[in-house]
Amino acid sequence: MRLIFIGDVVGRIGRKVVCRELPRLCERVSPDLVVVNGENAAGGFGITEEIFHELRDAGADVVTLGNHAWDQKEALVFIEREPRLLRPLNYPAGTPGRGAGLFDTASGKTALVINAMGRLFMDPLGDPFEAIEREVEACPLREACDATLVDFHAEATSEKMALGHFLDGRASLVVGTHTHVPTADYHVLANGTAYMTDAGMSGTYDSVIGMDPAEPITRFTRKIPTGRLAPAKGEGTMSGVAVETDDATGLALRIGAIRVGGALEPALPSFWLEEPAEAP
Amino acid sequence: MRLIFIGDVVGRIGRKVVCRELPRLCERVSPDLVVVNGENAAGGFGITEEIFHELRDAGADVVTLGNHAWDQKEALVFIEREPRLLRPLNYPAGTPGRGAGLFDTASGKTALVINAMGRLFMDPLGDPFEAIEREVEACPLREACDATLVDFHAEATSEKMALGHFLDGRASLVVGTHTHVPTADYHVLANGTAYMTDAGMSGTYDSVIGMDPAEPITRFTRKIPTGRLAPAKGEGTMSGVAVETDDATGLALRIGAIRVGGALEPALPSFWLEEPAEAP
Amino acid sequence: MRLIFIGDVVGRIGRKVVCRELPRLCERVSPDLVVVNGENAAGGFGITEEIFHELRDAGADVVTLGNHAWDQKEALVFIEREPRLLRPLNYPAGTPGRGAGLFDTASGKTALVINAMGRLFMDPLGDPFEAIEREVEACPLREACDATLVDFHAEATSEKMALGHFLDGRASLVVGTHTHVPTADYHVLANGTAYMTDAGMSGTYDSVIGMDPAEPITRFTRKIPTGRLAPAKGEGTMSGVAVETDDATGLALRIGAIRVGGALEPALPSFWLEEPAEAP
Amino acid sequence: MRLIFIGDVVGRIGRKVVCRELPRLCERVSPDLVVVNGENAAGGFGITEEIFHELRDAGADVVTLGNHAWDQKEALVFIEREPRLLRPLNYPAGTPGRGAGLFDTASGKTALVINAMGRLFMDPLGDPFEAIEREVEACPLREACDATLVDFHAEATSEKMALGHFLDGRASLVVGTHTHVPTADYHVLANGTAYMTDAGMSGTYDSVIGMDPAEPITRFTRKIPTGRLAPAKGEGTMSGVAVETDDATGLALRIGAIRVGGALEPALPSFWLEEPAEAP
Ligand SMILES: [Fe+2]
Ligand SMILES: [Fe+2]
Ligand SMILES: [Fe+2]
Ligand SMILES: [Fe+2]
Ligand SMILES: [Fe+2]
Ligand SMILES: [Fe+2]
Ligand SMILES: [Fe+2]
Ligand SMILES: [Fe+2]
Repeated sequence: MRLIFIGDVVGRIGRKVVCRELPRLCERVSPDLVVVNGENAAGGFGITEEIFHELRDAGADVVTLGNHAWDQKEALVFIEREPRLLRPLNYPAGTPGRGAGLFDTASGKTALVINAMGRLFMDPLGDPFEAIEREVEACPLREACDATLVDFHAEATSEKMALGHFLDGRASLVVGTHTHVPTADYHVLANGTAYMTDAGMSGTYDSVIGMDPAEPITRFTRKIPTGRLAPAKGEGTMSGVAVETDDATGLALRIGAIRVGGALEPALPSFWLEEPAEAP
Repeated sequence: MRLIFIGDVVGRIGRKVVCRELPRLCERVSPDLVVVNGENAAGGFGITEEIFHELRDAGADVVTLGNHAWDQKEALVFIEREPRLLRPLNYPAGTPGRGAGLFDTASGKTALVINAMGRLFMDPLGDPFEAIEREVEACPLREACDATLVDFHAEATSEKMALGHFLDGRASLVVGTHTHVPTADYHVLANGTAYMTDAGMSGTYDSVIGMDPAEPITRFTRKIPTGRLAPAKGEGTMSGVAVETDDATGLALRIGAIRVGGALEPALPSFWLEEPAEAP
Repeated sequence: MRLIFIGDVVGRIGRKVVCRELPRLCERVSPDLVVVNGENAAGGFGITEEIFHELRDAGADVVTLGNHAWDQKEALVFIEREPRLLRPLNYPAGTPGRGAGLFDTASGKTALVINAMGRLFMDPLGDPFEAIEREVEACPLREACDATLVDFHAEATSEKMALGHFLDGRASLVVGTHTHVPTADYHVLANGTAYMTDAGMSGTYDSVIGMDPAEPITRFTRKIPTGRLAPAKGEGTMSGVAVETDDATGLALRIGAIRVGGALEPALPSFWLEEPAEAP
Repeated sequence: MRLIFIGDVVGRIGRKVVCRELPRLCERVSPDLVVVNGENAAGGFGITEEIFHELRDAGADVVTLGNHAWDQKEALVFIEREPRLLRPLNYPAGTPGRGAGLFDTASGKTALVINAMGRLFMDPLGDPFEAIEREVEACPLREACDATLVDFHAEATSEKMALGHFLDGRASLVVGTHTHVPTADYHVLANGTAYMTDAGMSGTYDSVIGMDPAEPITRFTRKIPTGRLAPAKGEGTMSGVAVETDDATGLALRIGAIRVGGALEPALPSFWLEEPAEAP
């Protein structure tokens, strides 16, 4: 199976680059499953129903969220009727929406997608390890689904890498979000789980995590907020990750970075794009 | 000028890969300045005098540190006689050692190297922005030195990116350390400063930030420490960044990742390695 | 019913003052239930089986713990055979010991005692509000027990006060521990729950939270640990709180501070000590 | 000298109780210096010029602030013309206003008043120990002033107690603010500095740190904000501390709590109120 995950879409610039580049990429590589983190899609803060559909139209089979899930209050309502919008699993019982779902792909496969939030340096939710374990045990890879993809929205690299190893052999992909910076540590772990500490954001990197630098710099240097945080202007980058799984096991064969547009060094999953050498 | 920065060397595996690969790389590309972060070089915790010289012998012109600076108590003593060992600048007045230094390169240039620590999600030191500003103003790029390299040892991506923009046009390179994960967001900012959120660690990536995964997983899932953290076994990766500056301005022309060995996708600064097309 | 709660016993000085003053106080006021927090009883860090029995002999019906519960590794073992030693309820499933218990008093009553840990500015455990709610609902005050006492081991005053109001009318006493400073805000909330943000520690107040001031001051001013934290020397204070409940409802009628010995202004529950005016 | 310090005035209820009780108390005990923390005086968030004058009229010689200093933007402006309004000393250079001042009392004495902010579990400012040290060294007790009062606005009890011992013998009073809960640990330290971990807030204690409990409880239990934090309704308590210094040394002879009105057990500095036994 071919899995694509795109990191936190930030504001209009993020949506623009994703809506332009994701369909193009999907057309080239025909992924089985596309998951997009949309927690910052509405002006940097949360998501609206309209924007959710925009991301769906661009190719997202499932949209995940994070600590900004509820910045737009309407998300608390429309998430109830959108099974393809996931919020972190480890919110308290009674929170609107779901944190995991089993989805049928167009190619006739099934994929378990989980969204959870870390706790180190973040607002404390329920234990993400325990919550994810429960979902994964209830729907084991290969026995009950063809792929398992976990979007772990967390700050600390240690918590993310620990989750990767915790799930190694039981998930197809563990990918981090939230720091808004793509990492270059993507690789397949010893037991077959593809891992990447952070998918990066989809937005402009001429910024401070997607936002105009002036206000963050003021806050760091003067310690007095002077205005609001607003998405930076500039050219957007779509940032994410591509994973090829083994149909027999659901585990990962290859993982590669996706970076299209903007200031960063471009990257595409070459293993899906390079033509095999032609026979003479 | 050619600048190389290598991220946090973790334990024996980290030292081994750096001592094997750094001399090889230096021979190929003849850098003007090599800086290595050594805060985890001694078994994951701090640095000894012997290890400092090991890193120097491997090619490091300057060694920087971080929150683990003093894990080996001897560092508090020998740092006083080693001007090429820097600890974070924003430690309180009276802290042994220095946080910045002006160094002559073998090529006859001078480089200002600064090591500072972030405060978000970290033990609060003095204001890094103010402290760095003071050093940079006292020794302005091009007027008083040919290159300025800042190792910003920090957790939060926002603080690191804010510092990058804060120094944009006044430093050759702002590179982060501490998260032990290389980022793929290296690029030259609008005013000429090369920036990378984290250089990554030099150690094994089959690990939790360089450490054996068992104990970190236990701590996250059981919340009771059962043993000590120890460096993981496995193949090491040397991880860092390469920057080409413009001799006329001291600002950056190109930036590229360095990843050699181990589990990660390899990367080398192609702009120093590709042969120019020969004249016909 | 008469409830007594004594805050974190710190080291030898704390044990000494509690073992001297608690029996004396119990003799004077004949409490129905005495609960003592013992998380720092062993040299400031954790508790041993021997010390647990020392506190029991001094009059503690139940001993509670906190973030230092496991500093002495033997506690992980002997807690399994000591139903009267409680550790925070919201540790992960599988943690040795229990976080709540229903205890028969010598006076023929039953009391539910709960120990839980806060999450704000602390290592994140499970949700304490939800965990406590479950215990309280399973054993409602007056229907299933005569008194409910909650030791909420937490840092932030806001989290503690929120828990007080959350349980108001459903618990006899919500008392905080962990900050090692007694608060003067004890009062009966609107619906009958006695509340005190922190019981204070039992140890010497010529100290930094029970510890010798030299090392903490060094850590705050120099940011480099130079030695170990050790309990301060000096005269001890037993610090805690006394609550009189209404036998008909299990709710609180009166609350008063207990402070005996050492540097602090002494306090005793005058409502148990003042002789009623004699008939002429 | 007689020093009075009143803790964080919260909203209308806090102002009401202070404006009613402080003049009454001042009339009874004729203090030499009255300092009031006003960081929450405007609806719980910051201070306005009008409210500053209200507190001055109620008897405050000096008003101190904290992390909420700038919640009302006008404070950034009018603080420049109000030398009797202090903001934390360890804000970055260039911050409007001052963090310390030497004030003449009506009784012809001089008092150094310092406001500083802690860093543990708070937004990191400059080192408070170093900043306070500088002020105290520049204006030593007895040599350059008759009393030194420090309002240390901090979260952690350890940091507050460490500052108390750090200044012991060099200040008349070190009193904490910010947690909004009065502590019962007031005593004179070994070298003559009066110390109290927190003065408590002036507002209603039928609340969560002065605020209506509903929203804080929702945030702790549901992890989704549903509304704004607003001051609770109820009867107010004026909370603070009284210190008698030795005119010869500037150090403290006695310290006592002030709690007037509302739900808490009342307290007044008995040493100023009890009539000496009359001569026969
Ligand atoms: Fe995000
Ligand atoms: Fe996020
Ligand atoms: Fe490191
Ligand atoms: Fe570090
Ligand atoms: Fe404790
Ligand atoms: Fe504790
Ligand atoms: Fe306050
Ligand atoms: Fe505050």
